[in-house]
Amino acid sequence: MEKRFNEKTISELAPLVKSKQISPVEIVRDVLEQIEKLNGELNAYIEVTADKAHRQAETAEAEILSGNYRGPLHGIPVAIKDNIYIANETTTMGSKIHRNFQPSYHATVVEKLSKAGAVFPGKLNLHEYAWGATNNNPHFGPVRNPWDTERISGGSSGGSGVATAAHMTIASLGTDTGGSIRIPSSFCGIVGLKPTHGLVSKYGCFPLAWSLDHIGPMTKTVEDAAYVLEAIAGYDPKDPTSIDAPTARYSTQLTESVKGVKIGIEPYFFDNVDAEVEKAVKNAISSLEREGAIVETVRIPTLQYAQYAEMITIISEASAIHHHNLVEREEDFGDDVRFLLKLGEIPSAVDYLQAQQIRLQLDREFMEIFNKVDVIITPTLPLLPPKIGQDTVLLNGKEVNFLDHIIRFTGPFNLTGLPAVTVPCGFAQGLPIGMQIVGPAFQEGKILNIADVFEKLHPELKQNPIVLKQ
Amino acid sequence: MEKRFNEKTISELAPLVKSKQISPVEIVRDVLEQIEKLNGELNAYIEVTADKAHRQAETAEAEILSGNYRGPLHGIPVAIKDNIYIANETTTMGSKIHRNFQPSYHATVVEKLSKAGAVFPGKLNLHEYAWGATNNNPHFGPVRNPWDTERISGGSSGGSGVATAAHMTIASLGTDTGGSIRIPSSFCGIVGLKPTHGLVSKYGCFPLAWSLDHIGPMTKTVEDAAYVLEAIAGYDPKDPTSIDAPTARYSTQLTESVKGVKIGIEPYFFDNVDAEVEKAVKNAISSLEREGAIVETVRIPTLQYAQYAEMITIISEASAIHHHNLVEREEDFGDDVRFLLKLGEIPSAVDYLQAQQIRLQLDREFMEIFNKVDVIITPTLPLLPPKIGQDTVLLNGKEVNFLDHIIRFTGPFNLTGLPAVTVPCGFAQGLPIGMQIVGPAFQEGKILNIADVFEKLHPELKQNPIVLKQ
Repeated sequence: MEKRFNEKTISELAPLVKSKQISPVEIVRDVLEQIEKLNGELNAYIEVTADKAHRQAETAEAEILSGNYRGPLHGIPVAIKDNIYIANETTTMGSKIHRNFQPSYHATVVEKLSKAGAVFPGKLNLHEYAWGATNNNPHFGPVRNPWDTERISGGSSGGSGVATAAHMTIASLGTDTGGSIRIPSSFCGIVGLKPTHGLVSKYGCFPLAWSLDHIGPMTKTVEDAAYVLEAIAGYDPKDPTSIDAPTARYSTQLTESVKGVKIGIEPYFFDNVDAEVEKAVKNAISSLEREGAIVETVRIPTLQYAQYAEMITIISEASAIHHHNLVEREEDFGDDVRFLLKLGEIPSAVDYLQAQQIRLQLDREFMEIFNKVDVIITPTLPLLPPKIGQDTVLLNGKEVNFLDHIIRFTGPFNLTGLPAVTVPCGFAQGLPIGMQIVGPAFQEGKILNIADVFEKLHPELKQNPIVLKQ
Repeated sequence: MEKRFNEKTISELAPLVKSKQISPVEIVRDVLEQIEKLNGELNAYIEVTADKAHRQAETAEAEILSGNYRGPLHGIPVAIKDNIYIANETTTMGSKIHRNFQPSYHATVVEKLSKAGAVFPGKLNLHEYAWGATNNNPHFGPVRNPWDTERISGGSSGGSGVATAAHMTIASLGTDTGGSIRIPSSFCGIVGLKPTHGLVSKYGCFPLAWSLDHIGPMTKTVEDAAYVLEAIAGYDPKDPTSIDAPTARYSTQLTESVKGVKIGIEPYFFDNVDAEVEKAVKNAISSLEREGAIVETVRIPTLQYAQYAEMITIISEASAIHHHNLVEREEDFGDDVRFLLKLGEIPSAVDYLQAQQIRLQLDREFMEIFNKVDVIITPTLPLLPPKIGQDTVLLNGKEVNFLDHIIRFTGPFNLTGLPAVTVPCGFAQGLPIGMQIVGPAFQEGKILNIADVFEKLHPELKQNPIVLKQ
């Protein structure tokens, strides 16, 4: 059976759109039909802007017919997490407090996607204010995992993960402060890239913790992540954390041999990991070794303090942002976010500053390690997605608090700002498993290439989520 | 009467050294004699390394005689504040805890001065850990103002101010976190430059509050400050706050006309100022106006929160650095520093982060203002130096706590990192008064030029401190 357009990738669609064999209007129609069909169950979108998306697709069609093709994103639906501003569209942040907030301007990433000709089907559900990793949103309802709708999608970019995995968009944007792109990408079986801190502007994105926040692509394939990154990367003086570093045509840096590539393995990332997850990631690494990659053990002593530093930093910065509302109207926050915001009032400035010293030390150690190896590979998470509402899970037979583990492997790369991509690498109990590939600052091309080589070696891992088979 | 060599400036000495008319050995001899004569009374040096300085001068002499002249600092004594590392020399930080600390490496600024051929006569007294502005040091005794030895030198670079003013060195280095270069420079009647944050490396300088700390020259003239800055400026990857910005031959950017230069006056800096100080600074500005400068009133609304942001930032960062010793051996700190370190344990991370938001806003407002004016001129301090041990002073007839006022006009430029130079502009009650000239980031040449023009217009302000006339 021929795939419907919404099931295709950017790399499949773009040549057809360019050569006028298919129209952006047909793509968005299939995407909107899929949303119509599944959003009631999965709850990935907070708002679907169908009419606007149709008009954008018609404009794209007209431009392309008149010979003005803008590039691979022209006419491609890209759904936006609802903490990133589209001018004059309600941007709820998944919150009650901002339920009716309408920014008057585009986020820089939206501006850039718009210039690339993308179509915006709607705004995606998220953990309230992106402040959590389950995506059980008390104001807009939980986002459901398309591989098992009783399980969490992961968050905070859960809507982005689910919409992309369930073909309710072609690609999406997420944000990541402790793992919020990579966690739902891993749990939903898609590719999620957290770029180097400073490479993608955050202007027009509501902050969670500004020194840790990132925006990045969530896509069906590695190549698609490269296309979206090309469109959104680049220096922006409007974002004080933006860095004036060179960008690249990341999509042209793929499918290069991994022969001789040095992969670092840090035992920290294989300690206390679900046995099936560990097996899948180790098999994946072996598969890269068979292609000529070289595996080496590396040690980063300060990793043992990373989760402490991540927590102190994220809770403090988030509470600095929400302090006024917490004082004035705490009842308007969901229970879990209210708790975390209160927690963030506790650390002292000294605690916070000492955590920043840990970050500096971690930076130094990783910089050192990347003189020896090209990338580091880890499981994206140490465990599989739990059921919605379930606080504890079994980790190799031991009952643990799920939240203690969820950002254990992703958080260090928010602290250091290093680029990290998650790519599906296996299944356990019918649920997808993600492998995280991390590289030196601004070496997105390098990590995407390894992810791409792996993905192309394993076409059997490209499967449709269960919910689509019903 | 011909001046002795120690009474001369770098610009007077350098040509004589270069042309072999005088030897570095003669200069250091006069400097060491002056130290011998006055240090008992003024207490500017913690340690005098006479033998080492002699040997350095002999080496310089030999190099110059053999035709290897390094430039204007070759053979010139530059004394170093005792929180900046000279390899294998005791660096006390003015503290009991570090009384016997010997670093194994040079600070980058010492390395650079050394390459420029400078001679190091010794290490200068400071406020304990640079954490205070009076320079009443409980471990090494108070530094005394050469204009009135019953008065404070100001701090924390009090030794640098006094040694330079009393011709116990040719030039010196100080550090400045809230005004610690500019305050003693103003009180001692010399020139003090706090460069743009990131222009001068702080590697090998014991931090007080790393986001506010600066190293800079303290000299007898503006031209001398330019020579020292040329030697110490430049990007240093070893200092994470160092910025890879272009440096300049600052000494060649002096004595240009100030005709058409726009001077901004912010009423904040003329509010609650000692009447004699105000008069001196306003006269100085009028003098620049007569040379063709244009005066304009400017408004920076967030200045009203600057002192709060400065205090929260400095106390928090300082306490993060000294936290361990405060817990383990608080009795080893002096009373005032112990009090401030305990104070710094109080702010929450949220308080600190909100203070950083104030800094960002202040940055934006100053950037805006510098589209309209070239520089801003302020009194360096709102009042004259009080007597040693005196906590309250009369400010226009009203008794005020001296410490509430001491960094009121200097602190905003630590928060913003903007370059600021203080230059003597008058006297009151036999005590010198300083005028502060502030410019846009990395425009040291611009502020030094205005200071230089003013200094050359008013040779009558170049006087020897009272102590030298006794």
